[in-house]
Amino acid sequence: MNGHPGSVSTALFTDRYELTMVAAALADGTAGRQCAFEVFARRLPDGRRYGVVAGTQRLVDALAAFRFGDAELETLVGVVDAAALDWLADYRFRGDVDGYPEGELYFPGSPILSVTGTFADVVMLETLALSILNHDCAVASAAARMVTAAAGRPIIEMGGRRTHEESAVAAARATYLAGFAATSNLEAGRRYGIPTAGTAAHAFVLLHDDELSAFRSQVASLGVKTTLLVDTYDIRQGIENAITAAGPGLDSIRIDSGDLGVMAQQAREQLDRLGATGTRIVLSGDLDEYAIASLRAEPVDSYGVGTSVVTGSGAPTAGLVYKLVEVDGRAVAKRSASKESKGGRKSAVRTHKPTGTAVEEIVHPYGRPPVLGPHDRVVPVPLMRGGEPVPDLEPLEQSRERLRAALVSVPWEGLKLSRGEPAIPTVFPAAGGGA
Amino acid sequence: MNGHPGSVSTALFTDRYELTMVAAALADGTAGRQCAFEVFARRLPDGRRYGVVAGTQRLVDALAAFRFGDAELETLVGVVDAAALDWLADYRFRGDVDGYPEGELYFPGSPILSVTGTFADVVMLETLALSILNHDCAVASAAARMVTAAAGRPIIEMGGRRTHEESAVAAARATYLAGFAATSNLEAGRRYGIPTAGTAAHAFVLLHDDELSAFRSQVASLGVKTTLLVDTYDIRQGIENAITAAGPGLDSIRIDSGDLGVMAQQAREQLDRLGATGTRIVLSGDLDEYAIASLRAEPVDSYGVGTSVVTGSGAPTAGLVYKLVEVDGRAVAKRSASKESKGGRKSAVRTHKPTGTAVEEIVHPYGRPPVLGPHDRVVPVPLMRGGEPVPDLEPLEQSRERLRAALVSVPWEGLKLSRGEPAIPTVFPAAGGGA
Repeated sequence: MNGHPGSVSTALFTDRYELTMVAAALADGTAGRQCAFEVFARRLPDGRRYGVVAGTQRLVDALAAFRFGDAELETLVGVVDAAALDWLADYRFRGDVDGYPEGELYFPGSPILSVTGTFADVVMLETLALSILNHDCAVASAAARMVTAAAGRPIIEMGGRRTHEESAVAAARATYLAGFAATSNLEAGRRYGIPTAGTAAHAFVLLHDDELSAFRSQVASLGVKTTLLVDTYDIRQGIENAITAAGPGLDSIRIDSGDLGVMAQQAREQLDRLGATGTRIVLSGDLDEYAIASLRAEPVDSYGVGTSVVTGSGAPTAGLVYKLVEVDGRAVAKRSASKESKGGRKSAVRTHKPTGTAVEEIVHPYGRPPVLGPHDRVVPVPLMRGGEPVPDLEPLEQSRERLRAALVSVPWEGLKLSRGEPAIPTVFPAAGGGA
Repeated sequence: MNGHPGSVSTALFTDRYELTMVAAALADGTAGRQCAFEVFARRLPDGRRYGVVAGTQRLVDALAAFRFGDAELETLVGVVDAAALDWLADYRFRGDVDGYPEGELYFPGSPILSVTGTFADVVMLETLALSILNHDCAVASAAARMVTAAAGRPIIEMGGRRTHEESAVAAARATYLAGFAATSNLEAGRRYGIPTAGTAAHAFVLLHDDELSAFRSQVASLGVKTTLLVDTYDIRQGIENAITAAGPGLDSIRIDSGDLGVMAQQAREQLDRLGATGTRIVLSGDLDEYAIASLRAEPVDSYGVGTSVVTGSGAPTAGLVYKLVEVDGRAVAKRSASKESKGGRKSAVRTHKPTGTAVEEIVHPYGRPPVLGPHDRVVPVPLMRGGEPVPDLEPLEQSRERLRAALVSVPWEGLKLSRGEPAIPTVFPAAGGGA
């Protein structure tokens, strides 16, 4: 399932300097050095307690289309020399990729993705890998907090209009992975098989001569298992009209404005009085995880969330970086100023109490894991070998279930919405250590 | 120039409810009512003094590909009825579009886009129009503040890795429109003809046995008119190595970490001592408009900006809405609670002092403009007629020049980075007024 329909090349979703570095390395003979690059977050967004991995499958799909055809090469004349153009013409990714599976939690320093191969092979993937992971992880991380806040009530993603039209599709996927029930975005439904849902807009009511006619029309077209938007004029009258049009078997009403907690209470009482005891209440309108949490005691049945989730609820990018950590077996790292990195290829083990509660994230030198306890596990999995995806990459539903289970494993403080430390600490054993 | 390569349909970048509303309106006979929808911002992002219109051309291009082919219709079986599917199969946008040209400023209530046609024709464009405009306006609005802060020093956009891979391309376009000098994004270079630029990454230095070898390789490949990244290890030694490798004719050095103001001063002194008086200093590393402004007194020659600009510097979406304002000549508006809108189709005039300084934005009922003074002007322009783009839509360079001129017209308080009121007030004459 290619995230880039029409098999359009993804090779130019790339920063110019990656190709000029390849050209220079081809010329000086270092292009073939075996390298390991790692994707990780130096820190979580301010006060966040965990991150959620999302986008890995989109990246694997996009790499299949990372080829330089005539159209791409033509635009690179003058950017790199003829030797580099020849090399790019034959390029396909031939390296290995390991990483945290989608739906896994991550913490500061977690090696979310490891890419190994020759320098030229893997340096070019920096921008594409980071674009996909920074976006999708940011959205999934925010969405997971909302799912926790909703405490079992379903959430519909309806934020496509607040973000770039292609981001909208990826955001719908990331929110579904994080436990949202459905999306309003039709392309996400087509591309990823995510359930789509919808209600009606104020425009539909305004189009008609009066609200009752609009509701009657919607019920005639979609049946009573639909959601009527009752707040175009007066909410009380709107609910009255909704039940008049649909009868007490109406599936849902939606309220998109006003003091949502108060509105929900009044609407529930009114619906019950009208005999519509099974009619559900959908709330929308600038909801984020905090607003959702504040509505926990109110008679709400589901939420529609838009702007806040597609923009990562204050953290629109995950801040992941792609760093060279090893060259021909030699650990390398930037040493200057504030952005110091830990050299050497790494893997990670997450330890747990016998109860299943996570204890810490051990980020250790690759190939030298600590002794695993019976409740501990290695986090990264193989994703690509020799440029090909490993067989049987898991379906989205399985990633969704992984996150659900992972959140159960987090110490209870780690699920709080308030600002705090990461849910579990990241531990870096000395490079010489390990079993 | 289609923003969606491969002529992929854009018709499913749409929320499900738009199509179910069309189906219901087709069934009840209201689908053919003549409607006007408007795109506007109820308010600017917190404390911002103006917004910048961007994305209009991308929208016009995307509408040409808004067609329901077999693949799209197949996914809609079960979403809408057979009559609606038939109607969608023949659909192409046949309405009219007027709007603020790209590079124009906007304020709360400015009618950025007016779309007129039958209800069914125009209701379906809500999500696509808002996705494009909300993203591109958010980025361009942030970018314009950075250009002002840079006070003539060039800025290179290098944030593609911090946002969705397709958003990255649109963001590069929006920043160029706003006055950035170039982008690192190669696809933006290909798709929109924007100048691309690049330096080198720390990975290139780390790949080599030592920094001097890396610099010599880069100069051998790209010549001395290149930018050497000097902060992988020790900046002072890095600058020494850079001039050793390239000689005093080196074009630029880049510093990506540390206290950038102090670093720039020390680097300038060192470069001058080494005789590299013409070698320029490029700064990057988490720069936003405030950081850029704080560097105004330092010997900096250009900036590289990433995360902050592609995420709208704290306002990742412009908050634009798409509202039905007129049905068969009747003004309509939501009346409930806090989200009240002003009904009736509108246009806008911007008034100016004889000096050219903008005074106010008059948003008036369509067809009833105020009397224009000699320095006033009508802001919206025709963009599409009968579903076809008007001839000679302007090139990106012209939109760029429009913004440059518009920012000169803003009262000086309106260019301040600090939080405040909109640069000019929006005035709504009574609906009965006008000349």
